[in-house]
This record gives sequence, structure tokens and C-alpha cells, in this order.
Amino acid sequence: METEHTLRRLKTIEGHLRGVIRMVEEDAYCIDVIRQIQAVDAALNKVSAQILENHLNSCVITAIQGNDKKERQRVLKEITEVFEMSAKV
Amino acid sequence: METEHTLRRLKTIEGHLRGVIRMVEEDAYCIDVIRQIQAVDAALNKVSAQILENHLNSCVITAIQGNDKKERQRVLKEITEVFEMSAKV
Amino acid sequence: METEHTLRRLKTIEGHLRGVIRMVEEDAYCIDVIRQIQAVDAALNKVSAQILENHLNSCVITAIQGNDKKERQRVLKEITEVFEMSAKV
Amino acid sequence: METEHTLRRLKTIEGHLRGVIRMVEEDAYCIDVIRQIQAVDAALNKVSAQILENHLNSCVITAIQGNDKKERQRVLKEITEVFEMSAKV
Repeated sequence: METEHTLRRLKTIEGHLRGVIRMVEEDAYCIDVIRQIQAVDAALNKVSAQILENHLNSCVITAIQGNDKKERQRVLKEITEVFEMSAKV
Repeated sequence: METEHTLRRLKTIEGHLRGVIRMVEEDAYCIDVIRQIQAVDAALNKVSAQILENHLNSCVITAIQGNDKKERQRVLKEITEVFEMSAKV
Repeated sequence: METEHTLRRLKTIEGHLRGVIRMVEEDAYCIDVIRQIQAVDAALNKVSAQILENHLNSCVITAIQGNDKKERQRVLKEITEVFEMSAKV
Repeated sequence: METEHTLRRLKTIEGHLRGVIRMVEEDAYCIDVIRQIQAVDAALNKVSAQILENHLNSCVITAIQGNDKKERQRVLKEITEVFEMSAKV
């Protein structure tokens, strides 16, 4: 179900990006193109957050409630990594 | 020329994004999907910077060397705006 | 222990920020000031990631292993929120 | 004048950052600390944008209206660089 929702949003963003490509092909004003790219960026960030939420509520809960300490550490480390990266992109 | 370069990069990103959609369809690991989305984000930021560079070296130079003070202010204001926004997305 | 480490880093950043203030007082070149502010930003992001890591390895583990479902949801929701925000600042 | 305004804002942010340090010293809740760090980040981005605006309306106009082509290119290159960096921090 969440996958369906994620897919729908990603496909909308793909359409948005194709719109940006068309703008460039039609020689649209640079600043307008940059603004649309920033809108695509913002939409991608929202999808990422949604995917992370699903991940926390499934894999992460399973890992933390499980007995494998190494797996638990791996799963938590990954979250820190994508968090740190999200500030950079 | 620069437009060709921009278009090529945007189409590459579109292909990358379609790859992300495929990953979600095939139920890839959430964190891997997030990382690929972050890579798309980073690539979009680079294209934006390239478009801004072209814009600075064409429209902005023309506006600043021209006599229309209002137009000059408008053009400079836009740059501040996309700069401020770029920190947010 | 982690708190000591976090504090040390935050105090270093405070010193860095005071350096930026001095630069502005001494009329440093604008772009150099902006670059230093961006360096402060990057350092703050790293501290945030470190704090999140500590949080995941303490409170979040406790909440997820505990019996309070609402608390668990609250704790996971917060992570999604700071993740989403981190892409915006 | 603009320098005064910038200084005032930076000093306010310094106070905000000292507040964050105090929070960590007093063992505040991790997520609250992260949120305050993100607020400091957002405030720094705003100051950067303001400094860039001043820079565009002074040095950049002077450089572009001047006769030194190399200087013009240097000044425009810098703007692209801080723009690209702003998306990363």
C-alpha cells in the first residue's frame, strides 16, 4: 500500500522533471527553470521522508526487537547516514 | 550549446529517476532507494548551478550593463531568491 | 561521554561563528564570509547527525523494545520529522 | 548600514547557539536539541542570502560595469560556487 503511494508520487515527480526538460528545450527563462528544479528537489525530499517513515515502522522495529545486535547497529547506522546526507543534497 | 549540455544532464537524471521508480516497483531495500533519491537530488543541484552560471554570464551581465535600473534590481533579486531557496531544498 | 563530545564540538562551532562575526566587523570580503557561514552550517549538520546517532542508540531502542505503542510511534515520527527538516535547512 | 544589520543577526544567532550548548549541558531531549540546531542553520542561511544580496548590489555591479573581463568572470564564478555549496550544507 505504502509502495503504491510512493510510486504514485515518484511518477508525478518524473512528470514534473519531464516538464523541466521541455522548458529547457523551449528556451524558458533560466531562473524559472531553476525554480522548477528546486520544486522537484523539494518533492523528492518529501518522498524520501515518507520512505524513511515506512522503513522505521517496519525493518527498523523488526531489527531493534530482534536478537541480532550487529543487525540492529547496522540498521541504526544507516539512518544516521541518510540523515547526514540529507543535509548535504 | 550550454542548452544542449543542460538537456543531456537533465535527461540522464530522468533516466536515474526512472531507475529509482523501478527499484520501488521491485521492492528494493528502503535505504538504498533513499540513497538513490539523494543522488538524484545532488545531480539536480549541479544542473541548477550550471544553469545559474549560464544565466549570470548572459542575462545578468546584459541587465547590469544596461540602463534600466529596475530591471537590474529584478535580476539581482532573483539570484538572492534562488540562492536562499537552494539552502532549503 | 557522548555529551562531552557533542559539547566540545558545539563550542568549537561557537568559536567559528565568533570568527565570522569578527570578519564582518573587519569588513571582510562578502563571499569569504558566506563561505565561512557555510562551513559553520556543515559543522552543525555533523553535530546533529552525531546527536541523532546517540538518540537512536538510547531512547529509540528503549522505546521500540518497550510496550508503549504510542510512545514508539511518537519516537519514530520525530525521526522522520527531523529528517525531512534536515533537507530544508 | 547593511553591515550593522548583518552583525546584529549574527550576534542573535550566536546567542541562539549558546542556548543550544546550554540545552546539551542540561541534558535536554536529543530531538529538541536537533530542532534548535536546525533553527540555527535556517537563520544562518538567511544571513548568507542577505550578505549575498549586498554583495550583488555592490561588488558585482561594479565588476560587471568595469572593464576588467577577468575580474568579472571571477566575481560571477564565485556566485555559482556559493550557490552550489548552499545546496550541500
